[in-house]
Formats: sequence, C-alpha cells, structure tokens
Amino acid sequence: MRETWVVGAASTRYGKLGESAREAATRVALEAIRDAGLGPKDVGHTFVANCFGLTEHQGHLGPLVNNGLGVPEVPSVSVESACSSSSAALHEAFVHVAGGFEDVALVVGVERLGHLDTLAATGYFAYAADYPFEARNGATFPGLYATLANAYRAEYRTTPEMLGAVAVKNHANAARNPKAHFQKEISMETYLGSPVVAAPLRLYDCCPFSDGASAVVVAAREAIRAPPNEPLVVRASVRAGAVTALQDRRDLVGLPSSRLAAEKAFRQAKLTPAQIDFLEVHDCFTIAELMALEDLGFYPRGTAGRAALDGATARDGKLPVNPSGGLKAKGHPVSATGAGQVVEIFEQFNGRAGKRAVPRTGTALAHNVGATGGSCSIHIFARR
Amino acid sequence: MRETWVVGAASTRYGKLGESAREAATRVALEAIRDAGLGPKDVGHTFVANCFGLTEHQGHLGPLVNNGLGVPEVPSVSVESACSSSSAALHEAFVHVAGGFEDVALVVGVERLGHLDTLAATGYFAYAADYPFEARNGATFPGLYATLANAYRAEYRTTPEMLGAVAVKNHANAARNPKAHFQKEISMETYLGSPVVAAPLRLYDCCPFSDGASAVVVAAREAIRAPPNEPLVVRASVRAGAVTALQDRRDLVGLPSSRLAAEKAFRQAKLTPAQIDFLEVHDCFTIAELMALEDLGFYPRGTAGRAALDGATARDGKLPVNPSGGLKAKGHPVSATGAGQVVEIFEQFNGRAGKRAVPRTGTALAHNVGATGGSCSIHIFARR
Repeated sequence: MRETWVVGAASTRYGKLGESAREAATRVALEAIRDAGLGPKDVGHTFVANCFGLTEHQGHLGPLVNNGLGVPEVPSVSVESACSSSSAALHEAFVHVAGGFEDVALVVGVERLGHLDTLAATGYFAYAADYPFEARNGATFPGLYATLANAYRAEYRTTPEMLGAVAVKNHANAARNPKAHFQKEISMETYLGSPVVAAPLRLYDCCPFSDGASAVVVAAREAIRAPPNEPLVVRASVRAGAVTALQDRRDLVGLPSSRLAAEKAFRQAKLTPAQIDFLEVHDCFTIAELMALEDLGFYPRGTAGRAALDGATARDGKLPVNPSGGLKAKGHPVSATGAGQVVEIFEQFNGRAGKRAVPRTGTALAHNVGATGGSCSIHIFARR
Repeated sequence: MRETWVVGAASTRYGKLGESAREAATRVALEAIRDAGLGPKDVGHTFVANCFGLTEHQGHLGPLVNNGLGVPEVPSVSVESACSSSSAALHEAFVHVAGGFEDVALVVGVERLGHLDTLAATGYFAYAADYPFEARNGATFPGLYATLANAYRAEYRTTPEMLGAVAVKNHANAARNPKAHFQKEISMETYLGSPVVAAPLRLYDCCPFSDGASAVVVAAREAIRAPPNEPLVVRASVRAGAVTALQDRRDLVGLPSSRLAAEKAFRQAKLTPAQIDFLEVHDCFTIAELMALEDLGFYPRGTAGRAALDGATARDGKLPVNPSGGLKAKGHPVSATGAGQVVEIFEQFNGRAGKRAVPRTGTALAHNVGATGGSCSIHIFARR
C-alpha cells in the first residue's frame, strides 16, 4: 500500500449557493487542484458525491465536473453513502491511490437543497433511513436522533445544558469560520429558550439544511515532488456499517458503526485516541457529538456531556472537537460534509484556520456518519 | 496487483419486479454469493448501484442490502454512473480486491422503474444527460441517440435493415433467455412496420424500461480455494469519460469514451479484438451496438451494419454480440445492466446459457455506457 496524502483542499461557503451544484462542484474542484499545485490534467480519476442531484434534475454529475475542468476524458464516478457520501468517496479515492491505480484523484462533494422548502428537504433526507419501517411511519431524522438522545438520557444523567454546551461551542467556532453557514455565537440562554423540535432536541440541537461544495485532492507521496502545502498523511481510511433501522438494534446508546470503524481506524493508523490532537465529528444533532466522542473512545460512556460542559472540547480545550463549527453550525450540505471535514483539517494543519486555529495540529480524526449510523467513515491524518 | 476473479453471479428476470429494489437486490446478492460457494460473512465490502432509488423514497440502499444478508457491519457504498452504474461498481470492487484491500467483494445493481409511467421514466433517464443544455430543451435519450444515428447515416450508407438486423438478432437471442424482458422473436417486417419514435429510430430500435437486479461476486484468486464454477479472470477493468453534451462534441460518429476505454482495456488485458470470443455491448438503441462494434475496434467505421445484416454478430456467427439479448431485448434496468452483462458472460463460461450458448467462451468483453457516453466502462474476461 502506497503512502497517500491529501495535498489540496477547498470549500465554498456553506449556506445558500447562488449557483447550481455542477458549477459549485467544478469551482471548488479547480480550487483544490490548484491548491495542490497541480492542474486538472494531473488528475487520474474523480469521485463525485451528490445524493440529491435528482432535485436539480441532474444525475451523472461526475462527467459534467470533468467537462468543466477541461478533462472530459478522465473517468468519474458517483460515490454516495447518505450523509457520509464524500467521506465514502474519499475512501474510494484512497483505495485507488494507495493501491497504485491512480497517482492523483479528486474528491468533490456537493449538495444544493436551498431550492426546497424545509418539509420537502426533511422528506428527502429521510430517504437515507430505512424508509418503509422508519420514514414512511413518520420517523424523520430529528425524531430518530431524539430517540437516540432519549435512550442515552435513560442510561446516563444528561442535563439540557450538556447538549446546549455542544451547540454553544460549535456556534462559537463557526463564528470564527468565514465559510460557516451560521457565523454567530449563541448563549446558553438562547439555546435553552429555543423551541423543542423533537424532545429532548431543540432548534439549536439540530444542524441546518445547507448548500455547499467541498473538494480534496488525494495523491501518492511518490507522485508529488514538492507539495506547496503541508500534506495530510492518510494514516487510516476505513468504513463500517450497522443495522439501519433503530427498531432493529439492541442498544440505542451510541452508534455501532462508529465503534467498529474506530476500532478499525486506530488499528490501521497504529495510534490511540490519546494521540489525536483534534477532531471533526458528525454532529448532525448535539447528541451525535456526545455519542461520537464516546463511540470513538475519547471519553467513557456517559461522560462526554460533562466534558462539553467543562470546556474540554472547546477550541482551546484539552481535545478540540469541531473547530470548524461542525455540522451543527458550519452547516450540513449532505454530500459535501465529509470532504468539508477534511478541508477543515487541511486548513488547520496549514495554519489557514485563522481565529479558530487549534493549539496542536500533529494528528486529527474525521468522523462522518450516514443516517443514524447505517454507514460510518473514519479518516485519521498525521503530519509527514 | 492481485489476480482477480468473478466467482459467482445471479440475476432476477428482467421486466417487471414484484418486489422492492431492496428485496430484489438482497435476493440476487445472496444467490450470487451462494453461487460462489461462499456465505455473506465472507464478503468484505458491498458496492450497490441504484440510480433511481429516490423514486422509491429509498436512498442509502447498501446498508439495507447488508442488513438483509445478515452482515450489517460490512461496509457498503453506492457507486453510480448513469446506465453504466453497476459496471462502475464492478470497477470499484475490482480495485478493492486487486489492490489487496478486500478478499471478496459483492457488486449488486438494481433498478425499479415499472411503478412509473413511460413519460416519467423518460424524464428521469434524461437526468443522466447534460440537463440544462439537453434534457431541459426536450432532448431525451431517444432524440439524442437519433441524433447520433443521423450523424452516422450522414457519413456511412446505413439502410433501415442494418439497424433492423440488430433488433431482430437481439430479440432472437432474448427469446432463448428465460431471464430476458422480451422473450419473443421479431421479424424484419415487424421491425420495419413499427412506429418511428425519433427518426430514424423506430420502436424496435429502442430498449425498454425494465426492472431488474443483477449481482456478481469478485474475489482475489488467492482467497478462493476451490471455486465451484469456472471463474472469469478479470483481464481488464477500465473506465473513461467524454464530453457529455452532444452539442459540445466535434465528431458525432461513435462515442469517444468507448474508443478511449477500449484502448485502455486492450492494453491492460494484453489482448487484441481478434482474440475476443464474444461480446456484451451497450445497445440501448440499435445504432449504439453498431457504434460500439466500431469504437471497440471489432469493425472498421461504417461497416458494422453490413456485418449485422450478414449474420456475423449472430449467436452462431463469427463474433457473437449480445447473446443475452442485450439491453434491446433482454432489457435495461439502468443500474443493473452492467452487472447483468457480466452475469451473462459468467453463464456462458459455465455452460449455463442453454439454448443461447455461443460456440467459443475463452474470452469475452463487456461494454457499458453511461448516457450518450459521458462515461464508459469496459471489462475483459478470460478463462484461468
């Protein structure tokens, strides 16, 4: 297996795109390629994630991105896995490059949902659940994650302030991220006063529907002479699955696919959680961040809420979590989210994170979940 | 790169599925795994293609298939590329296995469109084109392929009987295929009397909308002790792209992605067209079969129509083409089609093709196109 690097990265601002998915995807793809000091002709394969392209009447987006880059002959494929689509695409790119099939591969994730109303978007999102057993019976994601939150609360003392601390922290981080959807801080009072969406989850527990596109360039170490940026060495790229429908799971505390992927990732990276400097985790709802920190082995079960309250996961805390603002406040353009996490890690490693820079950037982990954990991708990165 | 085999294969009958995509996909997946002499727990990764899942309100199909197989923990990803989706998925599976990332991988393609009316289905298909420039202006696939047919006719003498010969042959093959959508022969008179859909293409030039699911199991040679069937050795697995919109191409005779993929495939396989015993090619319209035979190097430009008329591509001809009946008559369940071509080659290699058996089965090529050639996959198989 060849040593594989992330050598370039770019994102649109998350929020509302004033252009089509193809335009946004092409634009960030070109930006990421240039960031890597390369040109489109250096790219051997492109991997494009765009779950909800049908809402723009556009499938088969990959060739259009390649057309826009001026390299129509380059093969492209759509790689998707619900909210973990572009981390799944990154995994495919990693396999191609590490396996010696390509020297340079491009991953671009894009989603545009701003042209839909909230109910329609919630409905489309729910297609990622086990539709006939969950969504068709009214269980959309706020309700499903509320179920997970309630199972967690039934087992471990969880105050509203513990969930609120995640929201307050991630908004504070996003306020320092010019690419974030919500660039404003919120107070605990604002959090506690926000309306309940699906008990115990309030408005500020939930990530927004965002538009956005993010791209990263993956290359074999041996193919890159002088990288213009500090590359991320891919120390682990793994995926795992789990029973999709919550009703079919024995244990609703945490996500089994996160636990399995974490085991595989730390084994592949030959690292332990204690050796990771900061994280981007999948906080589609605040409870998801707490579950992730426990599933990934950073905190014992039932203790991540306390850590959030104590500021341990703040930007300047012991273990910074979601310095980008996370899905919660940076935003969640479904198919762009996984690549966007890696863009954030790339910015942090390269001193481009400005006011949201974390203290230590020797290693980082990105954790991206599909739906309620039917899929999970984990990537671990380190410096050369 | 490890020697990689196709070791098991299964298909539903193409036509109308009396079950959901998840059920059909799971059923053929299990059948293909058992055909390989394996169990679900032997599979390290699943690759699922299902472009139009949103019409069933179901995205994120992979984990559901794995749930149904009893291996929810196994990673799964959606891999799509319009009508070449499951051949693209096969390419990903090949890269995983040949690259040493998995020993055994499952590819399953499924589509269910029978619950839509023809206009709706035509509309969804058109999302694979360059939507704002083609489909939105009324250019759906029958019109786009008619444009290609007219460009071909403008350059080379092409009688209606030359296109008709493709239809008559593929119906004759499908009539011997119990899994085919149309199990009836047609005469040249029937062909010539059928209504014009988009001149010069008549009803019998066009493939049907089909439901169906097809699965193949891919494994490293070193992981399989005693294969119960004769495996297909993957001698080439390649993909290529091309400018999507016809208006942006300089040359409308043939598909540039087919030509590029063929060059790459024959180089990778270290074989020439003369060494291939039979083919499954992408005949979504009869003209596409003629273009494919020329793009792939089996016939000089402008001569494949004559060959079809002369019976050279018949089941018992010099070079059997589409013994399954092809997309034209076996059917075209979009995301299942590429895997279905490989199922046919597997059946032929293993003496399971019954009355449609071709004379020589030492080597075979599968050619699968996305849209009007924005993508193309080619696989070349040989015996051990």
